[in-house]
Amino acid sequence: MSEIKKRILTGITTTGIPHLGNYVGSIRPAIASANAAHEQNDGDAFFFLADYHGIIKCFDPDEIHRSTRAIAATWIACGLDPEKVTFYRQSDIPEIAELSWVLNCSCAKGLMNRAHAYKAAVDINLTKPDTDPDYGISMGLFSYPVLMAADILMFNATHVPVGKDQIQHIEMARDIAGSFNFKYKPLFVEPQAIVDENTPLLTGLDGRKMSKSYNNTIPLFGDGNPQIDPEKALKKAIAQIVTNSQAPSEPKDPDNCTIFEIYKAFASDDEIHALAEHYRRGIGWGEAKQILFDKINGEIAPYRERYLQLMNDPKQLEEILQMGAVKARRVAQKQLDKTRRAIGIKPLAKLK
Amino acid sequence: MSEIKKRILTGITTTGIPHLGNYVGSIRPAIASANAAHEQNDGDAFFFLADYHGIIKCFDPDEIHRSTRAIAATWIACGLDPEKVTFYRQSDIPEIAELSWVLNCSCAKGLMNRAHAYKAAVDINLTKPDTDPDYGISMGLFSYPVLMAADILMFNATHVPVGKDQIQHIEMARDIAGSFNFKYKPLFVEPQAIVDENTPLLTGLDGRKMSKSYNNTIPLFGDGNPQIDPEKALKKAIAQIVTNSQAPSEPKDPDNCTIFEIYKAFASDDEIHALAEHYRRGIGWGEAKQILFDKINGEIAPYRERYLQLMNDPKQLEEILQMGAVKARRVAQKQLDKTRRAIGIKPLAKLK
Repeated sequence: MSEIKKRILTGITTTGIPHLGNYVGSIRPAIASANAAHEQNDGDAFFFLADYHGIIKCFDPDEIHRSTRAIAATWIACGLDPEKVTFYRQSDIPEIAELSWVLNCSCAKGLMNRAHAYKAAVDINLTKPDTDPDYGISMGLFSYPVLMAADILMFNATHVPVGKDQIQHIEMARDIAGSFNFKYKPLFVEPQAIVDENTPLLTGLDGRKMSKSYNNTIPLFGDGNPQIDPEKALKKAIAQIVTNSQAPSEPKDPDNCTIFEIYKAFASDDEIHALAEHYRRGIGWGEAKQILFDKINGEIAPYRERYLQLMNDPKQLEEILQMGAVKARRVAQKQLDKTRRAIGIKPLAKLK
Repeated sequence: MSEIKKRILTGITTTGIPHLGNYVGSIRPAIASANAAHEQNDGDAFFFLADYHGIIKCFDPDEIHRSTRAIAATWIACGLDPEKVTFYRQSDIPEIAELSWVLNCSCAKGLMNRAHAYKAAVDINLTKPDTDPDYGISMGLFSYPVLMAADILMFNATHVPVGKDQIQHIEMARDIAGSFNFKYKPLFVEPQAIVDENTPLLTGLDGRKMSKSYNNTIPLFGDGNPQIDPEKALKKAIAQIVTNSQAPSEPKDPDNCTIFEIYKAFASDDEIHALAEHYRRGIGWGEAKQILFDKINGEIAPYRERYLQLMNDPKQLEEILQMGAVKARRVAQKQLDKTRRAIGIKPLAKLK
């Protein structure tokens, strides 16, 4: 811990195919901030595909695999530069699982009892008659904050961008780091959560927050089905945005319209102002949807092209991930070696 | 799981220095049965130093390290043949920690709630006022049966020799294996516990069961302190066996004497019979202790010599463990690769 420099770490769980909400809320800002940090020589950034988190709730091996591929392709296509950041697949770094066990031994069980996600699952069980409070809860779900602590502490990340629901997990990582540091020696930086209040939560087709669980998402680069043209899929999804029954010529309220909400996440201030004027003068929903489509498509079309190239070239993707694994393991192996020595696990003698 | 052949797996936690009770209760019978199995070509045997279990309760890195060395030296000195069995250090097999995480996701938390060791710790807390039931309990202690399942399932061990208190852990390993096999594909053999009712529990200096926690042990090869001659240490410990105040010439009851109890674990039936007669004719405690010392020393002196050689040659020990790690990892890597593919974690493309 001689030099503590800024290191941002971002994990992406490998379930599902990225949609437009993921792009606006996570992919675009994370890549922008990584690139800015690189340009300003302000620390470094680690991004990883959290496939060992993916298997906690998803037992479909094909989905895990398909999602890993689509997410890797998406992030690189959207401008994540594997030369500038360290981009790797969690499961390629065996040191993480090993560290996770070591950290188990420096983590109070009571800490996990208080995890929001676990408590929420218990609360649901408590509402059902004759149900064990832990019904349907796996050790993966229960101990997942320890694995997350290992993800972070492995690389001594200083900053972890998270949603509000994840702040507690970063506090737990701090707690586990502190416990290990106290018990053995100060090897682990206590990370800070970064919660960006300004990043928009994208509105979905039905006006609620865009989310896979609401089934109201707009695909970013299609839904992963190679039979369907992803540009058409985008257009089709936008056509499904729920609107009211006002006639085209009627003046409309931009502040109460899903199309306008989504548009704001892509347009400049001038463009937003101009479209609002157009709404007030009267605009047809079809025209508004066309404007929205053009705007989004203008931004993502070049990324989509690169995405489709990458999806058709899994070898290239795998090479990128392998290169990232080499970079990440260089750090991980050193840190794990220090950790092992601190707890008394080391060779009995130097060989050769 | 094409060919299920007999495979016995034995783990040895790396805390403490082996004493005579460990030798009689575990080391001697385990080595005898491994050698017999090898001669009869009846399956194979895996033995490992469970250092990742050691760190659950022992936070002293020097003790973990010292104990690992002494235990490795003891088992080899007592006849464990690393050419015939697979003898390795758990922490040299990173695949085990990784499998442990995967198994977490196929293990109900409720299963761990019911573990005897965890429940016993909770019960103690419940007797104290204002104490959290999980006070002082780490995630290492709570989830240790999952790591143990990984130790076993990693190598598809069929038989695991355990004490009665560990039978539940083998049942848990079966349960976890079954859950994974059902959810994904049948990759794991459900292991059986072997509980040897015939192995003597050695009596300690004070007449209770010999145990480190009673502080009544007789050292096997000294206490690990190189300043103290281990043969003298054995003699000194035997001299401390608690006896009654009968005069030498008085007839004595062999069945109510710690010296005789310990003697029985080392002598032949004829020798036991002869000493019993000697007791009934009258024997001095000093003489009885000398007979016991000679008997034990006769058996273990050659092992002790080899032990001291090994302790003075940690390089040789390390080489043996490294050789074992290579053998064990050959099996572990294959099994982990199958496991990872089953859950959807595999390369996006074949490189090279």
